[in-house]
Amino acid sequence: MPVRTGVIGVGLMGAEHARLLTDAVSGSEVAAVFDVDPERAEAVAAASGARVFDDPMVLIKDDSIDAVLIASADKTHEQFVLACLAAGKPVLCEKPLTPDVAGSIRIVAAEVELGRRLVTVGFMRRYDPGYADLKAALRSGDLGQALLLRCVHRNAASVPVPSAVLISGSAVHEIDIARWLLDEELVSVTVHCPRRSSNSGDTQDPMLLVFASASGVLVDVEVFLNAGYGYDVRCELVAESGTVLLDSPAPTVRRAAGSLARAVPGDWRQRFTEAYRRELQDWVDAVAAGEPPRGASAWDGYAATVMADAGIRALDTGRTQDAVPRDQPALYR
Amino acid sequence: MPVRTGVIGVGLMGAEHARLLTDAVSGSEVAAVFDVDPERAEAVAAASGARVFDDPMVLIKDDSIDAVLIASADKTHEQFVLACLAAGKPVLCEKPLTPDVAGSIRIVAAEVELGRRLVTVGFMRRYDPGYADLKAALRSGDLGQALLLRCVHRNAASVPVPSAVLISGSAVHEIDIARWLLDEELVSVTVHCPRRSSNSGDTQDPMLLVFASASGVLVDVEVFLNAGYGYDVRCELVAESGTVLLDSPAPTVRRAAGSLARAVPGDWRQRFTEAYRRELQDWVDAVAAGEPPRGASAWDGYAATVMADAGIRALDTGRTQDAVPRDQPALYR
Amino acid sequence: MPVRTGVIGVGLMGAEHARLLTDAVSGSEVAAVFDVDPERAEAVAAASGARVFDDPMVLIKDDSIDAVLIASADKTHEQFVLACLAAGKPVLCEKPLTPDVAGSIRIVAAEVELGRRLVTVGFMRRYDPGYADLKAALRSGDLGQALLLRCVHRNAASVPVPSAVLISGSAVHEIDIARWLLDEELVSVTVHCPRRSSNSGDTQDPMLLVFASASGVLVDVEVFLNAGYGYDVRCELVAESGTVLLDSPAPTVRRAAGSLARAVPGDWRQRFTEAYRRELQDWVDAVAAGEPPRGASAWDGYAATVMADAGIRALDTGRTQDAVPRDQPALYR
Amino acid sequence: MPVRTGVIGVGLMGAEHARLLTDAVSGSEVAAVFDVDPERAEAVAAASGARVFDDPMVLIKDDSIDAVLIASADKTHEQFVLACLAAGKPVLCEKPLTPDVAGSIRIVAAEVELGRRLVTVGFMRRYDPGYADLKAALRSGDLGQALLLRCVHRNAASVPVPSAVLISGSAVHEIDIARWLLDEELVSVTVHCPRRSSNSGDTQDPMLLVFASASGVLVDVEVFLNAGYGYDVRCELVAESGTVLLDSPAPTVRRAAGSLARAVPGDWRQRFTEAYRRELQDWVDAVAAGEPPRGASAWDGYAATVMADAGIRALDTGRTQDAVPRDQPALYR
Repeated sequence: MPVRTGVIGVGLMGAEHARLLTDAVSGSEVAAVFDVDPERAEAVAAASGARVFDDPMVLIKDDSIDAVLIASADKTHEQFVLACLAAGKPVLCEKPLTPDVAGSIRIVAAEVELGRRLVTVGFMRRYDPGYADLKAALRSGDLGQALLLRCVHRNAASVPVPSAVLISGSAVHEIDIARWLLDEELVSVTVHCPRRSSNSGDTQDPMLLVFASASGVLVDVEVFLNAGYGYDVRCELVAESGTVLLDSPAPTVRRAAGSLARAVPGDWRQRFTEAYRRELQDWVDAVAAGEPPRGASAWDGYAATVMADAGIRALDTGRTQDAVPRDQPALYR
Repeated sequence: MPVRTGVIGVGLMGAEHARLLTDAVSGSEVAAVFDVDPERAEAVAAASGARVFDDPMVLIKDDSIDAVLIASADKTHEQFVLACLAAGKPVLCEKPLTPDVAGSIRIVAAEVELGRRLVTVGFMRRYDPGYADLKAALRSGDLGQALLLRCVHRNAASVPVPSAVLISGSAVHEIDIARWLLDEELVSVTVHCPRRSSNSGDTQDPMLLVFASASGVLVDVEVFLNAGYGYDVRCELVAESGTVLLDSPAPTVRRAAGSLARAVPGDWRQRFTEAYRRELQDWVDAVAAGEPPRGASAWDGYAATVMADAGIRALDTGRTQDAVPRDQPALYR
Repeated sequence: MPVRTGVIGVGLMGAEHARLLTDAVSGSEVAAVFDVDPERAEAVAAASGARVFDDPMVLIKDDSIDAVLIASADKTHEQFVLACLAAGKPVLCEKPLTPDVAGSIRIVAAEVELGRRLVTVGFMRRYDPGYADLKAALRSGDLGQALLLRCVHRNAASVPVPSAVLISGSAVHEIDIARWLLDEELVSVTVHCPRRSSNSGDTQDPMLLVFASASGVLVDVEVFLNAGYGYDVRCELVAESGTVLLDSPAPTVRRAAGSLARAVPGDWRQRFTEAYRRELQDWVDAVAAGEPPRGASAWDGYAATVMADAGIRALDTGRTQDAVPRDQPALYR
Repeated sequence: MPVRTGVIGVGLMGAEHARLLTDAVSGSEVAAVFDVDPERAEAVAAASGARVFDDPMVLIKDDSIDAVLIASADKTHEQFVLACLAAGKPVLCEKPLTPDVAGSIRIVAAEVELGRRLVTVGFMRRYDPGYADLKAALRSGDLGQALLLRCVHRNAASVPVPSAVLISGSAVHEIDIARWLLDEELVSVTVHCPRRSSNSGDTQDPMLLVFASASGVLVDVEVFLNAGYGYDVRCELVAESGTVLLDSPAPTVRRAAGSLARAVPGDWRQRFTEAYRRELQDWVDAVAAGEPPRGASAWDGYAATVMADAGIRALDTGRTQDAVPRDQPALYR
């Protein structure tokens, strides 16, 4: 009996999730779709054999739906996640959990009140084989303690966005992965602003963020939304006696016209397809087994929002900002 | 309604197929298992929720089975494939289709007699993203005509095998992929025998084969079963104005102790997991849709066996051997 | 008639210079050697056929010496360079020109007073083929304006040093190369201090410096003296539509024991031998031709010292420090 | 006192030698130049301060010349080398020593008659750091015995040449390096001819040669004169428990327009400059010291010619050819 998922929001990201849930995940089907744009919903529904709902709240409550995936606009996440908790349904919510700290606190509070974990936040990098290697290397102890985590997050191009989006929408991935790799909280952040690219309009792009973890590990993150050449995510763990670096895998090397070249991914779909597929498979497996989710929790979503919020304050004030999350409820330990 | 597959033979290869069909393929379940070793069958059945059969012929005919995957000993392939054809069931048979040319001819004849294609041969490299890149590069015409295809096929270690197995069991992969990439038949083969590795006992290992295609492209294949360091499959298409080479992707790079290192896969499961997964997904999708299979056909399996057979004669005689397959029946065009 | 060089200071660095001047540079010979350790001086003199002096000031003035190379302790640089200027002899002084700003100012003043350029500072990276590529890429304009310069400077291991030495002895290389690549001054610096490596004793190691250039380019430099695994210098120029990164060239790739590995250099002699050789050849050629030196000038040495000094203040105070060099004398334009 | 070299033949290759001897080799000067084209001779002489001779035999005998470098047409090598032997002058002769076996035998006989070694053949790859790594790896014994040596030798483009030139002019480099790496003679050769590139006219290009060494190591060499994309020389030593492969070093990596690219050298001058420089420095050092040359000997030149000759017969006949050199005179042991 496959897990019947309802997908709320089928823009670029939600449509990709629906495609993977339909075509590449075992024991899964997309049973329902909602989007503010009905045509978009119809298109995805046609490809997956799903039913189109015109009210996401009705979709969430519908008995034919086992679990919910939320990929709608950030500001709508809170209400949908809370509705899923109220309906007792497992929910995978795209990052960020909420754009604001208060919203994340309300979700955590509701889940704690419920007394069991239903919420997963879509920090899919935890499922990338490269990051898994980094974590295994650190855990093995072979390289000693972590000292630095050097991160780069570049996109080929972006529509105009407020500068804060480089932090809340992009660096938030590095915030989560740093917390997960280092297994501790980040506690402060400084933002450095270089001259802007002439392709970036009024947006402060690129941007350099320097986080410190509770134990003093520095995590620096270059975000560059209009890097031009492609999608490029890097991470190097620098430890006491060695380093481990994400590679840029490409299936082939072409030699032509005086050049030995590998393709750079155009966007996250090429770079992280396998991570998304594994994330969804793991989520579906947990739902099918009635087990708690194993990906990033509501707490992780909250902690990332707290640190992104501090980053935005650091950007606005030009000063280092501290940010310590609240005490972690027992549910998440 | 998932496609219910029966798996015949669950050694290393069949168990991996069963795992992927259960855990990583959409719309699929393993419903039946047979193995000459009942314990092995029980173990796989337990993991996939399948029923254990003690007679593979009964399994093939059982109404609860939609399709059959054969990963048993090479010499048993023919009878099982013929039984699937008799039962009108789609069948994915591990390579080689049969160890001998005569067996492959009988399978092709039976399928032609039936009048529709049910047989797929497990040449999974056709689903590897790297080989797909090579094929796309050649088709685009950007690099001109193909001139050479330079192949390396190394395993970390092997149990003692007859020297012919380097051709029928290993180089047969390159025979198929060369036919598929170049879209033409191979027509002759020469074998060069270097000094043997002291790790290879009486086996002629490594071995260097040089095939020629109908249009004169040379395909050379180094096979080395006891290469020691790991599993390493390479292929470089050399065309008139450039080359495309399979890369050796690894998710991370480690710097430690004076060395910058990437992991080499230990065996085919690490290197070709994605190719196997895509092959199985595509096969299951075609079965579910009632469409003809899209992977390597019985004809491809026959053609590969013809050329492997010529290679073994070249090895035995020390002389170049020609080998032209029969005329291709209309069913396969 | 070869250029006869006197070498003052033949520790690790000076001995390597003497070796290259003797064995690998055209039109050059080492004619004189001084070291505070007479045995060390004798050893180098024996290998190069040079005469040993017991007074460096006498060496500088000796008529048989055409030019002087200074590789003695940092604090002795000023007196020797000033003596060379007084004697009208071309001098190549290892970096830093002087440990303190005041000393560099005195050297610049003396050279301006003299009215012609005799001083070269040993910032040899300007002669590295990789950095030359970066400069050419930037000058071509193909990638747009520079936005970031991302630098890493790691050594395998270090004797205990004051934390300031990470800036004055190591990051000073990046200060010079950034000024040279960007063709503008750096104007401010912030220092971030991660948790220290347990191999680094009381030294703040590693360290992360963030410089800003006059036009707003950010130059970040990770310095790590006890990185353990080897000598690793990286630099990525991030421009508006692409990046250029120093590669880690190694002559061979070894596959063994499950790993594909390239050697990481043990120290600067392996990584930068070609840069040192080109620097010395260019210096000798200019001396032979009676032309002004083409490497880093006394002014460049002064500017690097100013910015290193600001970096040390930033380390000590924990606050961003501005540092603008004086007006550049006409002699250096 | 620098070694005064006379250069005979200053086409592309001889001019590059003259440049290196003048600008990049210690203890060396180019004192004399001869070329069949006087203008070419004048141009090189002007850059190096050399005297132009109009008779190469007079140049060889001139007392002001310490040593001779021959880079004239292949068919003129023999007479010039014999004249150098008659004059008792060290001579570095570009490969091939002679185009024919008989000529090489006469040179060896003359040198044996003289009783001391004066001849060096310009197989400069012995000085390449990559090949040196391969040799060191093999000698260390860490990887076990050599089994295969897999070689690729591609040029960007070529003027029309007879097919035999792919062997006598290109593969001859691999013949020498294989003998040097394996420390044994090659004894047979087979040639495989793929379809020709449409850029190669009537020339059999590319070509695949398979040599066997006395102990049974197979050395395969792909030669492709019109590979289009650049100059690409590869060599992989395959041993019993691992392999070592020449890398394709490039100083930088550029990311732009969806591609991560490294430059491929345009010709041998970029790829092997360091090997040529080291070869010349070592030759000059030996001449200056009055020591026997340390590069490839006249015997090595003869042995390479013997095997190239066998290769040409194999090409012409389509059959494997054996070729065992004569007994090695004591002078060369």
